[in-house]
Amino acid sequence: MNDYAEPIARLIDEFTRFPGIGKMSAQRMAYFVLRRGKEDAERLCQAISAVKEKILTCSLCNNFSDSDPCRYCGPARSAETICVVEEPKDVLAVEKTKEYHGRYHVLHGALAPLNGVGPSDLMIGNLLERLREGTVKEIILATNPNVEGEATAIYLSKLLKPIGVKVSRIAMGLPMGSDLEYADEGTMSRALEYRREM
Amino acid sequence: MNDYAEPIARLIDEFTRFPGIGKMSAQRMAYFVLRRGKEDAERLCQAISAVKEKILTCSLCNNFSDSDPCRYCGPARSAETICVVEEPKDVLAVEKTKEYHGRYHVLHGALAPLNGVGPSDLMIGNLLERLREGTVKEIILATNPNVEGEATAIYLSKLLKPIGVKVSRIAMGLPMGSDLEYADEGTMSRALEYRREM
Repeated sequence: MNDYAEPIARLIDEFTRFPGIGKMSAQRMAYFVLRRGKEDAERLCQAISAVKEKILTCSLCNNFSDSDPCRYCGPARSAETICVVEEPKDVLAVEKTKEYHGRYHVLHGALAPLNGVGPSDLMIGNLLERLREGTVKEIILATNPNVEGEATAIYLSKLLKPIGVKVSRIAMGLPMGSDLEYADEGTMSRALEYRREM
Repeated sequence: MNDYAEPIARLIDEFTRFPGIGKMSAQRMAYFVLRRGKEDAERLCQAISAVKEKILTCSLCNNFSDSDPCRYCGPARSAETICVVEEPKDVLAVEKTKEYHGRYHVLHGALAPLNGVGPSDLMIGNLLERLREGTVKEIILATNPNVEGEATAIYLSKLLKPIGVKVSRIAMGLPMGSDLEYADEGTMSRALEYRREM
């Protein structure tokens, strides 16, 4: 016999599907829903439904958006640069700098052959289409500085360079405010590799 | 301007209300909802609604349940013992031992005067009512072994003992599989205090 009443067990089960939510967190969340008012639960459901109804994928850059093209594909942003990222949340990470005024392209993943993720699983097709017009001068590869992200960057650079577009990779090095003493070898070696003349 | 489209921002906001869910987790969860199919979102909403519609509070023990009285207040369980816990999830923690066959009473909180939680905020009233019939022989205080739980246990013991019922407190001591070397003073001192003749 399950220890929870069926509806509680089912809600806990739904919550554990979320990334990073374990059994304990899911239980805490389900009890939180139980403890709060009915209006709160309704508001949460409405927010979930609204996100599924109103948010679409931008046909140009594949970012999640409430408009197509999305706000970053509009005329306010330079069409000469495309910053390629793995996930929609990475767009926000770049935007936080307030220094990038070009456009984006969201791959919705990174190459991971061991997990069965190949180039055809990423949104690369419509990136190539965007380059056909010839307005794009530079592609900045801003995939993650890990094995999958690096593999994806190398793959894309080999694919894009022959087209004649400038391809660059975001720098890897020591994070601001950190200490050399605590840097791992990989980071330290990249910090040397990406060094810049002063 | 908010960096997220409004429906995404709203869903992230709803998720951050959950205990233990920070801004980053909420963002990850919202993007997870976006990435998954519409049926998944609907199933989640149904689970949330079902929990609010079908789960009620047992009028005897205050536990969350899909029936009233709940499964632990039925004739299958001995009415002579009541185990008093702070939250519904604590019932499951005791049940896990498979050694307790009595009933429960959920206080829905613990005394925390500094946070404005006094005796009137806890479900103590209907605990006293349950004692009136005289069937209950022992009350086991299984509130948490922390400041609030201890204060609640002391308060309840002073309240219940004059009624003539036996009042006991769950033991505090070293957890199984642990090492004396790593025990804090509080736990070690309780382990001595709760020692038992062999």
